[in-house]
Amino acid sequence: MGAINGKEFIDRINKLKPEIWLNGEKIDELISEHHAFKGFMQSKASLYDLQHDDKVKDEMTFPSPLTGDAVGLSYLQPKTIEDLRKKRKMMEHWAKATNGIMGRTPDYLNSVLMSFACCANYLEGKENCFPNNLRSFFEYARENDISLTHTFISPQVNRSQIYIENSKEPIAAKVVGENEQGIIIKGARLLATQGGLTDEVLVFSVGRFLFNEDEAFAFAIPSNTQGLKFIFRDTFLGGESNFDHPLSSRYEEMDSVVVFDNVLVPWDRVFYYNNAEVAEEFTQQSAFHHYAKHQVLTRQIVKTEFLLGIAELIVDTINISEFQHVQEKLSEMIIGLETMKALLEKAENDATLDEWGFIRPNIIPLKVASNVFPKIYPRFTEIIQLISASGIITLPTEKAFTSEISRDLSLYLQGANRSALDRVKIFRLAWDLTMSSFGTRQTQYERYFFGDPIRIASDLYKSYPKEKYVNTVSQFLILNIEDK
Amino acid sequence: MGAINGKEFIDRINKLKPEIWLNGEKIDELISEHHAFKGFMQSKASLYDLQHDDKVKDEMTFPSPLTGDAVGLSYLQPKTIEDLRKKRKMMEHWAKATNGIMGRTPDYLNSVLMSFACCANYLEGKENCFPNNLRSFFEYARENDISLTHTFISPQVNRSQIYIENSKEPIAAKVVGENEQGIIIKGARLLATQGGLTDEVLVFSVGRFLFNEDEAFAFAIPSNTQGLKFIFRDTFLGGESNFDHPLSSRYEEMDSVVVFDNVLVPWDRVFYYNNAEVAEEFTQQSAFHHYAKHQVLTRQIVKTEFLLGIAELIVDTINISEFQHVQEKLSEMIIGLETMKALLEKAENDATLDEWGFIRPNIIPLKVASNVFPKIYPRFTEIIQLISASGIITLPTEKAFTSEISRDLSLYLQGANRSALDRVKIFRLAWDLTMSSFGTRQTQYERYFFGDPIRIASDLYKSYPKEKYVNTVSQFLILNIEDK
Amino acid sequence: MGAINGKEFIDRINKLKPEIWLNGEKIDELISEHHAFKGFMQSKASLYDLQHDDKVKDEMTFPSPLTGDAVGLSYLQPKTIEDLRKKRKMMEHWAKATNGIMGRTPDYLNSVLMSFACCANYLEGKENCFPNNLRSFFEYARENDISLTHTFISPQVNRSQIYIENSKEPIAAKVVGENEQGIIIKGARLLATQGGLTDEVLVFSVGRFLFNEDEAFAFAIPSNTQGLKFIFRDTFLGGESNFDHPLSSRYEEMDSVVVFDNVLVPWDRVFYYNNAEVAEEFTQQSAFHHYAKHQVLTRQIVKTEFLLGIAELIVDTINISEFQHVQEKLSEMIIGLETMKALLEKAENDATLDEWGFIRPNIIPLKVASNVFPKIYPRFTEIIQLISASGIITLPTEKAFTSEISRDLSLYLQGANRSALDRVKIFRLAWDLTMSSFGTRQTQYERYFFGDPIRIASDLYKSYPKEKYVNTVSQFLILNIEDK
Amino acid sequence: MGAINGKEFIDRINKLKPEIWLNGEKIDELISEHHAFKGFMQSKASLYDLQHDDKVKDEMTFPSPLTGDAVGLSYLQPKTIEDLRKKRKMMEHWAKATNGIMGRTPDYLNSVLMSFACCANYLEGKENCFPNNLRSFFEYARENDISLTHTFISPQVNRSQIYIENSKEPIAAKVVGENEQGIIIKGARLLATQGGLTDEVLVFSVGRFLFNEDEAFAFAIPSNTQGLKFIFRDTFLGGESNFDHPLSSRYEEMDSVVVFDNVLVPWDRVFYYNNAEVAEEFTQQSAFHHYAKHQVLTRQIVKTEFLLGIAELIVDTINISEFQHVQEKLSEMIIGLETMKALLEKAENDATLDEWGFIRPNIIPLKVASNVFPKIYPRFTEIIQLISASGIITLPTEKAFTSEISRDLSLYLQGANRSALDRVKIFRLAWDLTMSSFGTRQTQYERYFFGDPIRIASDLYKSYPKEKYVNTVSQFLILNIEDK
Repeated sequence: MGAINGKEFIDRINKLKPEIWLNGEKIDELISEHHAFKGFMQSKASLYDLQHDDKVKDEMTFPSPLTGDAVGLSYLQPKTIEDLRKKRKMMEHWAKATNGIMGRTPDYLNSVLMSFACCANYLEGKENCFPNNLRSFFEYARENDISLTHTFISPQVNRSQIYIENSKEPIAAKVVGENEQGIIIKGARLLATQGGLTDEVLVFSVGRFLFNEDEAFAFAIPSNTQGLKFIFRDTFLGGESNFDHPLSSRYEEMDSVVVFDNVLVPWDRVFYYNNAEVAEEFTQQSAFHHYAKHQVLTRQIVKTEFLLGIAELIVDTINISEFQHVQEKLSEMIIGLETMKALLEKAENDATLDEWGFIRPNIIPLKVASNVFPKIYPRFTEIIQLISASGIITLPTEKAFTSEISRDLSLYLQGANRSALDRVKIFRLAWDLTMSSFGTRQTQYERYFFGDPIRIASDLYKSYPKEKYVNTVSQFLILNIEDK
Repeated sequence: MGAINGKEFIDRINKLKPEIWLNGEKIDELISEHHAFKGFMQSKASLYDLQHDDKVKDEMTFPSPLTGDAVGLSYLQPKTIEDLRKKRKMMEHWAKATNGIMGRTPDYLNSVLMSFACCANYLEGKENCFPNNLRSFFEYARENDISLTHTFISPQVNRSQIYIENSKEPIAAKVVGENEQGIIIKGARLLATQGGLTDEVLVFSVGRFLFNEDEAFAFAIPSNTQGLKFIFRDTFLGGESNFDHPLSSRYEEMDSVVVFDNVLVPWDRVFYYNNAEVAEEFTQQSAFHHYAKHQVLTRQIVKTEFLLGIAELIVDTINISEFQHVQEKLSEMIIGLETMKALLEKAENDATLDEWGFIRPNIIPLKVASNVFPKIYPRFTEIIQLISASGIITLPTEKAFTSEISRDLSLYLQGANRSALDRVKIFRLAWDLTMSSFGTRQTQYERYFFGDPIRIASDLYKSYPKEKYVNTVSQFLILNIEDK
Repeated sequence: MGAINGKEFIDRINKLKPEIWLNGEKIDELISEHHAFKGFMQSKASLYDLQHDDKVKDEMTFPSPLTGDAVGLSYLQPKTIEDLRKKRKMMEHWAKATNGIMGRTPDYLNSVLMSFACCANYLEGKENCFPNNLRSFFEYARENDISLTHTFISPQVNRSQIYIENSKEPIAAKVVGENEQGIIIKGARLLATQGGLTDEVLVFSVGRFLFNEDEAFAFAIPSNTQGLKFIFRDTFLGGESNFDHPLSSRYEEMDSVVVFDNVLVPWDRVFYYNNAEVAEEFTQQSAFHHYAKHQVLTRQIVKTEFLLGIAELIVDTINISEFQHVQEKLSEMIIGLETMKALLEKAENDATLDEWGFIRPNIIPLKVASNVFPKIYPRFTEIIQLISASGIITLPTEKAFTSEISRDLSLYLQGANRSALDRVKIFRLAWDLTMSSFGTRQTQYERYFFGDPIRIASDLYKSYPKEKYVNTVSQFLILNIEDK
Repeated sequence: MGAINGKEFIDRINKLKPEIWLNGEKIDELISEHHAFKGFMQSKASLYDLQHDDKVKDEMTFPSPLTGDAVGLSYLQPKTIEDLRKKRKMMEHWAKATNGIMGRTPDYLNSVLMSFACCANYLEGKENCFPNNLRSFFEYARENDISLTHTFISPQVNRSQIYIENSKEPIAAKVVGENEQGIIIKGARLLATQGGLTDEVLVFSVGRFLFNEDEAFAFAIPSNTQGLKFIFRDTFLGGESNFDHPLSSRYEEMDSVVVFDNVLVPWDRVFYYNNAEVAEEFTQQSAFHHYAKHQVLTRQIVKTEFLLGIAELIVDTINISEFQHVQEKLSEMIIGLETMKALLEKAENDATLDEWGFIRPNIIPLKVASNVFPKIYPRFTEIIQLISASGIITLPTEKAFTSEISRDLSLYLQGANRSALDRVKIFRLAWDLTMSSFGTRQTQYERYFFGDPIRIASDLYKSYPKEKYVNTVSQFLILNIEDK
């Protein structure tokens, strides 16, 4: 079928009827009509519609190598820098459609799956590994434009470095059995964003942690698989009014705890299992970090542009551009934005072919950006608050502006260069991005996107090639390495 | 009547029926039973009840100099350091009753009014000034335990330094006429916290801004005065469940724009008017900053203790105390807390008598604290988020814990040292303080409590006695001051 | 003659005998043999020798458009991105030869002069402007490989924004007369680095300040012009031992106050004078900032690599790489380095042709880098100190290592992975870069390279194109621009 | 004999003739006449003279409990808060005499020794411990006003947490034998400030490290003990001119590596040895940290005042007080100063009696200050550089001001409110404090005074009583501690 449109996306999700729990209740109604998901589902559907929009469809799809049908460009396995740039262009289109606010536009998971598929060879010949299952699933996803979520983190019971789970029942999801049909999983995984709102769930393990063999697996299953439950956190949807809640009314993606209640994963969907070494190495060896970080950086740039636009609009609205400290704060945002852009471009320019013939954006600038953004994003939300002062608090609602009191509001809440209505729109947006429950979850999300900031700094240090700089200094000082 | 209890407070407010607009609707029902104010009104009422609590009533009240009745200690005009310490003890009781979260416990405005009354002499003999009105109103407030709000900021239309309002209709509140009964005010003032939820409104002007004569006034009027309107911002109440919204369900104080629609202020309530010089000088000359900052610092210390308690509880719950960066973050909070405590103590120890015989806490340590807290409070909320990682996002509701899914939650969301229920309680509190709409408004509130952080830094620099340090250096260098 | 070698450079400077004052004495001896300049002159001479080094001479020179002789590549007026990259390569060679420590390798001033020459057309037809003089001087400099310094800042008497000089005698250099031979200058200019140690001095005015007409001029004169005096600051040369003072013994460049004691500037060396508008606009309109910043950024990257090499060498020497906070600090340096590299590359990739047919690197990434480096360089010197602890203080001298006590030093000062001798070499280098008088002057130099950090942040904000981001947000909110 | 004067101090040191190595040479001449120590010795002598200065001698001494002679107040073992305040007053006198620049005024070591003596009881009855030796030595020091240095850190060979020394020869000082006369020490200790310039050396071990039994000891020996060598680092003395080097010409204290070349420590000078537990616990149990931190904080406050004076003098000299960012930077310094003052006062007010009847200042505010100062001091030196711009670089010498070129300097280097001479004096002081080799060593010294900043933050966190704040939150949330 190839690249789907918004209606196809919605129909497919509505038909699935996965087991979703929200606020102590099991969801029965159609997902796309449920108060908590309606706005989000429409926003996501509009992304799929872009694939059929005459103006950009050629930049959103490419001909399937299998059928020639137009399929989503995020599934393209890139072999040239030009491929990379085409992919980035497509990702920009989707990012701009939501101003970078939707964290999980489809290209994110598609890129993750694509990165795994590119490295299926790695699994070849290894114990309990099934590279062909991975390749088939990738092909299936590409040809059917399958929407995905993923989950790879164990519950946050105990973050001590030496913690060993000793609960009677599994807490972290584990292989508790296997039979002719497949493997059986019991336990939980944390924080699948959009979990239950996608066709399938991709489950795998991320390296650099201590693994038990029975926690080392990767597979994909439909969201409505028997025994699979999605327990949603409380919603951060402020309400349905686009005026009052310009962002949460459209982009509240939801996060869920994923519970596996003796879930049977059929053999043809198992990519690997009971192999701790593969679990530790696969995401490191694969192009996972390359393609995931390439997508994320592209989106974060669009989001930073949105923040800068908001900040400048506030500066203009209340006429504070003459203040040196305001100029300095805005220049901080410009510096952040341009830094991210330069790093993205460098990652593409310095891309290299991997052993399997695919081209990977250079990981160094991407890792640098992954270290930078979790620090600057919260700072930029703070800058928006700092320049807004009380304006970001004094927020009447849409209803107030259509009521009798509207005349007073129009007079007393006007801005230097904006009507009261526009002024409140601007500040409500600033608020929804930086101070509403929706906005602060965004901040936490960006801060932890690739894990604990301390750990990703350590990783950058450890993986960075420092020898040549050490050698330069050693030669300058004429050190006697050998005299020790 | 003297110090009131909670029921008296509620009854009096319910009887007032001021003109309050919320979400485009005029409030008709009883304030204390309205969804948006119920929790707050109960919390505030409980503070008044403390005045009659056997355990602390002696520390909450003192005998009225007029009647001998027990009246609120915040009305005491201090003449000794011991008085100051008694006042602080009382303020601690009230602050602890809400863990420092309620920004405007009654002692804040009572202290402000008391500080004005102490300096009524300043107004003596000045044009358009009525010191006796101020003294009488203070006495009336003290004897009847009147609850107050205040408002002193003009609408944020244009924050440029050279802005001159040129609207046809007044935007900033102005004296637009006077007659035998009093002066007539038209226009608006910004951000009265608890506006409409108190007996009276204290209106005055804060120095250091450019004033037109007609914007220079101070008075107090009942909240239900004809023509006085309170337009509320959107509510940040998350809901009524103490489990889901432990703070906003109790402490959502509301802010309002105060509109004066040709309000008549009777002469006996006018403290001064049409005197720009007095408007600029009175808050500087009076003990306003001394007593207000003394109250605020006392409350902020209690709040910081609450934050530190939450942070340590999280550290323990997910067992992360071994990490050096966690230790460093918590030590930052300890440093902030101990710094604030030391500054408060020094302000009291170095208190001095003013020209009218009242003792003022030393302003330097208080100004320093006013510069410190707006920086450390947002940082501490950030630290709480940083140590919480995804735990502060994965927040099921009270209803979920009483539903069928509760068993899964109990298993998968448990903490290293806490049950899932307690773990979620702790994280919901952390969230409500730092990430909910209620919490982020608290952050903005603390950040701007005494005005723009840049401006209060400038003020500290300008008002600080630097000469002796300059002289020490000049003598060390044997400078020839005169040879220039 | 074309590109010179080191000996030619030294001979020419020795012959000049400009009026130089150091420590209250007029220098009489040969510059290249004077204790204070010997090391520096040799280092600079070695740069000129590189132009004749077989391995790189093709990358250091190009054929003169006039004579076909090999002339310095920094004089190339670039017309393609390839030209830009060639120039950068050449600048890297020179930067690496001194590890980025020499602030004023010849390419800096050559690039400045070249940038002016590219824009000589701008002066065409303007009052008191002589574009041909500029073109001739550029040609003369290129063909003779003339070394230059420049000076453009008035004495730091009073930095208030509203200061107007009212001294009887000129303080800031001024045109005090003109005659048939030329214009006469009296007064001083600040901080010519290497002033008196170059063939010529380029004097001009940088825009964005208030000018009097008589302070608005640009010209170039030989360092030994009658009435021209260079008053040197105290030297920061630690000593002549490369072991004890690995940097200052080689790279102490000296700064000087330049005094014009009724200096006659011949007409054929005047580029413009008595034209405040041109003085304000020329450096803004010309490619000055483009080429100067391109050179500076290239050098700063090499310097940052040197700092990173030193830091990693220390980490290894005392074996502290396991500490998370050390990893974090080093990752900060990596982030800074990679950010600078990405910005440089982007500036080149996004280069554009100017109206006169020359290609300019894109100014935005260069301005961003100019904002970034003054903040990260001091931080990186601090990181080096922080990881060094007492090791950067306990510094015996070369003489100690050749004395009787050497045995004790070798035993007690050894590092985990280095001999005591190497360990001390490394720490002395770290010290000379970050803590010696030479090193701290470097820090101040980088911090202020393009002026007051606050002002360059303001400039970035003001000159950055923000409209498109504002428009994106305005469209998202459907603002009614016209309803105001 | 009691409190000595400056001449007595100098004579005694001159007579000692300890083995000192500087720049590869053994010092033979009189210490007080040696170029490298002359200025320092005079400065220190002037402190002893203060003990006989009529204006303050009563505040500098107290009657010996043994003889009734006036002895130094730093030896007073405090039993009341009043005692503490008297001691602080005395320490202020000494700190002010050098503006806090001399790090080791005699009261520092005297306080350390006094703190040990107060806790001699702790050693009672423990293996290899000799409390009476400690008491006698303290009495001897007090009655003879003995000057001391100390050393407690092992060489920085390898800072890894798991390092075990495996050199053939001892590197860290160890007990290598014992006989009838005493114990024999071989190896080195790091960084005795003023080592070799005092009567005696106090050697001990600081807790919280891994100890071998043979590295666990405490004793005191005369500086001229056989086999004891002091190897000095390179000098940071800039020169002897007070104009050119206002600080280093007076206060260069020198640091030394202390080498024990089979040094015999007589039994009556051994306080403990071969007891790792005591070595780990004694400095923790004793009042060492209390009294040492009390002295250090007192001095650091005086130093901070000096920095603030310099900063304000610069602001005034070049007339930059109108800039908001300058005001903000100076306000940062004020905040730091007032914070330190408040913490000191609180430490005294909250002092408590220990088990042996001595009063200890409260350790919490002192620990907080120990965490604060290492961060603010480097920042304040940076602020001074930031406000100084090029003024702190353009530094002519004293000789220049007495030469022919002086007229030009006077004209061109004048400040808005200062003559050129005074302007240069001020900037040279700023430079000597923040940018000369002397000044940067001061920065490193303050940064590491009580050890690695990360470690002292951890210590604050671990030792701080957090329970009551946790309990408050637990009660607010009605946690079920027991249901886990």
